[in-house]
Amino acid sequence: MKKNYNVAIVGLGQVGLYLHNELRIKKKEIEIKTGKKLQIVAISAKSINKKRKYKINKKIFYKNPFDIFKKNIDILIECIGLSDGVSKSIVERALKNKIHVITPNKALISKHGDKLSEIAEKNKVNLEYEASVGGGIPILRTIKEGLATNRISKVYGILNGTCNYILSEMEKTRESFKDVLKKAQLLGYAEPGNPKLDLNGYDALAKVRILSALSFNKKISNNNPLMEGIENIESKDFEIAEQLDLKIKLLGITEIIDNKLFERVHPCLVKNNTYIANVGGVMNAVILDGKPIGESVLQGEGAGPGPTSSALMSDLLSILRGNIKFPFGISSSKRKKVQIYDVNNYVNSLYLRFEVKDKPGVLSQITKQLARYKISVQRLIQIPDNAKKKASIIVITHNVKEYYSKKCVSSFKSNKNIIKKPIVIRLF
Amino acid sequence: MKKNYNVAIVGLGQVGLYLHNELRIKKKEIEIKTGKKLQIVAISAKSINKKRKYKINKKIFYKNPFDIFKKNIDILIECIGLSDGVSKSIVERALKNKIHVITPNKALISKHGDKLSEIAEKNKVNLEYEASVGGGIPILRTIKEGLATNRISKVYGILNGTCNYILSEMEKTRESFKDVLKKAQLLGYAEPGNPKLDLNGYDALAKVRILSALSFNKKISNNNPLMEGIENIESKDFEIAEQLDLKIKLLGITEIIDNKLFERVHPCLVKNNTYIANVGGVMNAVILDGKPIGESVLQGEGAGPGPTSSALMSDLLSILRGNIKFPFGISSSKRKKVQIYDVNNYVNSLYLRFEVKDKPGVLSQITKQLARYKISVQRLIQIPDNAKKKASIIVITHNVKEYYSKKCVSSFKSNKNIIKKPIVIRLF
Repeated sequence: MKKNYNVAIVGLGQVGLYLHNELRIKKKEIEIKTGKKLQIVAISAKSINKKRKYKINKKIFYKNPFDIFKKNIDILIECIGLSDGVSKSIVERALKNKIHVITPNKALISKHGDKLSEIAEKNKVNLEYEASVGGGIPILRTIKEGLATNRISKVYGILNGTCNYILSEMEKTRESFKDVLKKAQLLGYAEPGNPKLDLNGYDALAKVRILSALSFNKKISNNNPLMEGIENIESKDFEIAEQLDLKIKLLGITEIIDNKLFERVHPCLVKNNTYIANVGGVMNAVILDGKPIGESVLQGEGAGPGPTSSALMSDLLSILRGNIKFPFGISSSKRKKVQIYDVNNYVNSLYLRFEVKDKPGVLSQITKQLARYKISVQRLIQIPDNAKKKASIIVITHNVKEYYSKKCVSSFKSNKNIIKKPIVIRLF
Repeated sequence: MKKNYNVAIVGLGQVGLYLHNELRIKKKEIEIKTGKKLQIVAISAKSINKKRKYKINKKIFYKNPFDIFKKNIDILIECIGLSDGVSKSIVERALKNKIHVITPNKALISKHGDKLSEIAEKNKVNLEYEASVGGGIPILRTIKEGLATNRISKVYGILNGTCNYILSEMEKTRESFKDVLKKAQLLGYAEPGNPKLDLNGYDALAKVRILSALSFNKKISNNNPLMEGIENIESKDFEIAEQLDLKIKLLGITEIIDNKLFERVHPCLVKNNTYIANVGGVMNAVILDGKPIGESVLQGEGAGPGPTSSALMSDLLSILRGNIKFPFGISSSKRKKVQIYDVNNYVNSLYLRFEVKDKPGVLSQITKQLARYKISVQRLIQIPDNAKKKASIIVITHNVKEYYSKKCVSSFKSNKNIIKKPIVIRLF
């Protein structure tokens, strides 16, 4: 059996650099745990001379990431990011060259995971991506190994630390979304440049897709499921939630309904006394329903170079222990194609917030329209803003089909008394 | 590589029988996931004709468990239980015969795990025991693999479902310990015959020892650490805890202090708004502090044939995937001997409940004695029971060394005004 492994790291951003340092200081420990010797033989990043927190060996530095293939490499760690471009090409080329690949890149895996997995299987190498979901929480390994023979029916949770931090902070301070986002960016919890992919639910959805594929032994979905972010939530939503003993959380959810896959990401109102309501800050949490296991919960820090690096290291040790595994737990040929559940049939109780002009008859226009779409009202709260001659009208509905609620909400577009698109938050 | 695996199961109690059935119905799935074929070739239990929930094949039944070795076996699943006797002998013999072993037996592993692990390593077979801690929660695999290169400093949690059920139920109903225990026995949550090993903390301690060995890469400890059960807790303790916004939980805790191992199991008062306070019923939860991972939480059903079987199956798949692993994550020769932290130095705030005769001067006797042992009072509550001419005196202390609190508590023995040994619950 092979004793020495050569490693290349491409991408020396926060995660790549932290991992690079961990590999150096834990070399001995890795040897003790696996009996294998590790050597970093190539690194690549945009700039060789950028000021870095940890030292790098410039003798093994390559500006062009593809130049790493000049070296004899056993394991490639891809920390570039993005679903396409260099990261995809380099991972593909590595797998084809029988080089194991480790990546925290959820965009890449959720888009190209099926194809990459086939290439890895064909070339009998590992493609490991534990860090792509849940940061340091070993959730993928748990599904693939710890709960291997369970029949999983549902997985949901808080999958984006940035959003959870913003929601927790807005709840606590009642500051505006914009102000809290700024704070999150200063603290390094949100991308300074373009935080959109976190905020609009895209990041969580990529994780949901990966979780589905593993939990249900299916191919990765590529439809456009229900995806809503947190950008439109205002501090008044937290005030009302508090009155109702509820909290607002962005949840990613995947489940099998009538043998069909139903994936979604959207803000939810959850009861204050539930577990998920009390997962605050940048924490991530995943809840699984399985048989015979029952309900399982995993919680941990969802982001940051430390936790991500912990997950990458677990991938590395898995490779060094020398067992080639199917990247998605079972052979690609056995993974079925996904049938998608029609979101229009999704039934839920809703929180709707209307911002309206304070004029007579507006309330009746709203309730009439709701009735037209068979939406019955469980509770109604009107909060006047006399200074601005405005009011907020909050409606908690009984169960309503997504088909009707969507139609109903868009039907208000033409109503001049309704100042902006109603906010919809689903009760969980 | 080997393609066919022969399995023997000894012990067909609740767990063994459930697993036996799972193996039969999931044969195909296991083959898909691992590429290996499984056959149950021998089973053993006390009685062949006992009425069982699932059918067994009597042609492969052996009354004498050691007769299974007449068959050609690759994997032995030991579900007999107890730390010594048949379970120990049969596991030892199997390992020596180069047969992989899977067991949920925490008593066996926490007592003989070091020796068994050496035998397994010498014979290049696996010894897997995921089900011994945390029921279905894949906590051991998570420590060994998912968090492999983290520096873990502390692990604690709710490790005994029976005790957690009893405490949760007493809290909710305010029924007596005895009544709730009966209910737990009827529901199958507590042993009908001898529930002592659950109630006195022994079971949780066995799990703590296993967690320590894995988390800190040390040999299993065999000293007598602080171990207190829940048998003396009364419903009035819950009343007072509620007033103080606290909950009572039996926690197992292990941590490294000054390079020494400090293991303990005892009831704790935990703040109502903490995560651990809200883990109710038969649930188990484990919290780990590690670097760089930060705090991680795993929660799930802690007992019962379903969850246990899920863990046993994950062990089985790990073996079938064909990689021989060190039972404790690293080679036995690299695992250091444990140095033990002196419990007398343990500093804590305490809840003390005295049951006293309602006579003048008793309170002053107590406070005087506390002062003598340098125990300063943070809060004092006296609850009279006029009908019985008794009173309960509850003292919440400031931080006090275990050395003094132990001495102080036993000093009350000779005081005739104090009706029984004071109850001590540590604040967490």
